[in-house]
Amino acid sequence: MPRERIESTSFFIGRQGKGVISFGSGQPDLPPPMSVFTVLRNSKTFRYGLIQGDEALRKGLAKHHPGFDPDDFVITNGSSEALDLGLRVLGMRHPGKKVLLTKPYYYSYPHIIRLAGLTPVFTNLTSDGRIDLEDFRRKLSGAVAALINSPSNPTGRVEPPATLQAIERMTKGSGAILFSDEVYRDLIYTGADHYSPRGKHVVTLDSFSKTFAMCGLRVGYLYTKNTELIRDIVEMKVHTSMNTNSLGQSMALAALAAPQKYFSDLRRTWQKRRDVITSGLRDLGFDLWEPEGAFYVLPKVKGDSNKIVNDLFYDHRVIAYDGAWFGAPGRIRLSYALNIPEIKEGLKRIGKYLRGQKSKVKGQK
Amino acid sequence: MPRERIESTSFFIGRQGKGVISFGSGQPDLPPPMSVFTVLRNSKTFRYGLIQGDEALRKGLAKHHPGFDPDDFVITNGSSEALDLGLRVLGMRHPGKKVLLTKPYYYSYPHIIRLAGLTPVFTNLTSDGRIDLEDFRRKLSGAVAALINSPSNPTGRVEPPATLQAIERMTKGSGAILFSDEVYRDLIYTGADHYSPRGKHVVTLDSFSKTFAMCGLRVGYLYTKNTELIRDIVEMKVHTSMNTNSLGQSMALAALAAPQKYFSDLRRTWQKRRDVITSGLRDLGFDLWEPEGAFYVLPKVKGDSNKIVNDLFYDHRVIAYDGAWFGAPGRIRLSYALNIPEIKEGLKRIGKYLRGQKSKVKGQK
Repeated sequence: MPRERIESTSFFIGRQGKGVISFGSGQPDLPPPMSVFTVLRNSKTFRYGLIQGDEALRKGLAKHHPGFDPDDFVITNGSSEALDLGLRVLGMRHPGKKVLLTKPYYYSYPHIIRLAGLTPVFTNLTSDGRIDLEDFRRKLSGAVAALINSPSNPTGRVEPPATLQAIERMTKGSGAILFSDEVYRDLIYTGADHYSPRGKHVVTLDSFSKTFAMCGLRVGYLYTKNTELIRDIVEMKVHTSMNTNSLGQSMALAALAAPQKYFSDLRRTWQKRRDVITSGLRDLGFDLWEPEGAFYVLPKVKGDSNKIVNDLFYDHRVIAYDGAWFGAPGRIRLSYALNIPEIKEGLKRIGKYLRGQKSKVKGQK
Repeated sequence: MPRERIESTSFFIGRQGKGVISFGSGQPDLPPPMSVFTVLRNSKTFRYGLIQGDEALRKGLAKHHPGFDPDDFVITNGSSEALDLGLRVLGMRHPGKKVLLTKPYYYSYPHIIRLAGLTPVFTNLTSDGRIDLEDFRRKLSGAVAALINSPSNPTGRVEPPATLQAIERMTKGSGAILFSDEVYRDLIYTGADHYSPRGKHVVTLDSFSKTFAMCGLRVGYLYTKNTELIRDIVEMKVHTSMNTNSLGQSMALAALAAPQKYFSDLRRTWQKRRDVITSGLRDLGFDLWEPEGAFYVLPKVKGDSNKIVNDLFYDHRVIAYDGAWFGAPGRIRLSYALNIPEIKEGLKRIGKYLRGQKSKVKGQK
């Protein structure tokens, strides 16, 4: 294989061929709830729907999010579009202004902020992989919005409720809109309660992709008590993409009916996989933040993280993402959305790679 | 019913209740090709797909558009997102610059141009409802792009090949990107050949919504030989919405297998409906441009077109759109995506309204 240098996640799309172990893309390999298939069998017409989203689905979501009404929701093409629309509306109101986000970050965040005509400003995590409230407060000054993500992609860390409450207060005080990306909220293994910041200044992002294994259907949503923002977002979506695909929305509504067991099974499966990958990586000598939710781990590596990602792919057929793509050079991101035998095989190959590196160093001496 | 003033198309969404005749939204009431239902029964997993679009679908489209390769296509959330992405890429390259479009226009065009940070500039149609090449040439100066739509929403007019060829040459000469919105290309009744402008500077927009009655599924696409533009559009879509919904794409691929008879039946149905509505409107004294494609007619009205739209809805339960929303005040837009008995009932109600207006005028004398 010619060694074209790997410079972004897009390189790997479609390369999950036979014999390749992919710790790359963050998509569940588990089946969606059975209820969604009934919808498929019974769909007959495919007409335009409400731009804001199907009323039945928004009613269903309002039941799942106490304190919110159907009109507080907008259904979008994944939470990506929800954030894109929200930021574009802010960008029209405040061109060029700052948006605060943590670093490491989900790789699309800085791009999507710049595409909206806004300027990303970063707050670094503590050595423990958590939000540094002092730094957050300092950097928040002059920002029209802040963007947080707990459980986090790429760190797997879950912020304690006290931190999230402090951020809720700080942003309210500074007048910033707080975007809270909670797409992994149903995947917390620690037993800790999920805290969702509240208030008219908060816009929460969520999705059916991860919890319900429906990534490709692109059904996400945002909800907020900020009615002016809802109005402007819907007005924008009329022109930029119209309704979110109607069939995906019907399937999403069916997915909401999944029994509690579906969620507890899900958490158990992901926790087991996390245990296998983290203990395996530690055995190989990696220093890492213990993931508490989502399905990503971001261990430190010795040497150039991009070279390591290239070597792993070309020499060992293992896909890992360069931490640099997430604002974390010197680390690699591994998604453990794989069954346990595949995780173990991937770890074995990484071990082989590491031993090869050691012997090379010895050879040079 | 309280008479809240009707100010945009969004007012009508969800108001197509019982007893209302809607000449509003442009969505076919016909069934999609049978092949799409097989896909629904056989779909099992819903994983992320290629951002640019499913390879099988792009291969299928390349067969339908001779001279184009699968890599020349990007599958999008309807042609709305195709245009949004294309214009946003241009807006990043040339902030604030001009985009030329005809007036009347599809109501989203000026919005989507402004949202991309660009400036709409309008060229008026001839009295015959066609592009005025002299005015087009004059206004093109300094524009980074032009946007045309034949068959046209809202006029129903089809531009002759010679006009489209002239525009193809003019834009090539001026260095402007030519966006050619051809979502109604399969719905031309005149027997005239459809001409699709070509060249590296052309970006063609198309959709499965209208031809295949799949509006709500939001599967559209763009294609071009401009590989830099494709690259930048895909790179943007990674962050703003990711892949277009995978199930809709599988259904779109199945729809491409529809037999020729599906298309000829379609044209026959729409032509019959056009004949009924245009002769009915002429009998009522309306002056109109004969639609040659798509399913819209844009007759002139006497008096305030917004008041007429309000009166028709509140007093006669007929939905029509104010031409002003399409840059054509003094006209109303009627979509004839209705069966013939409904079209006739709608015409009867419009006739009743007109007679009421006349007797009011008499009463005032």
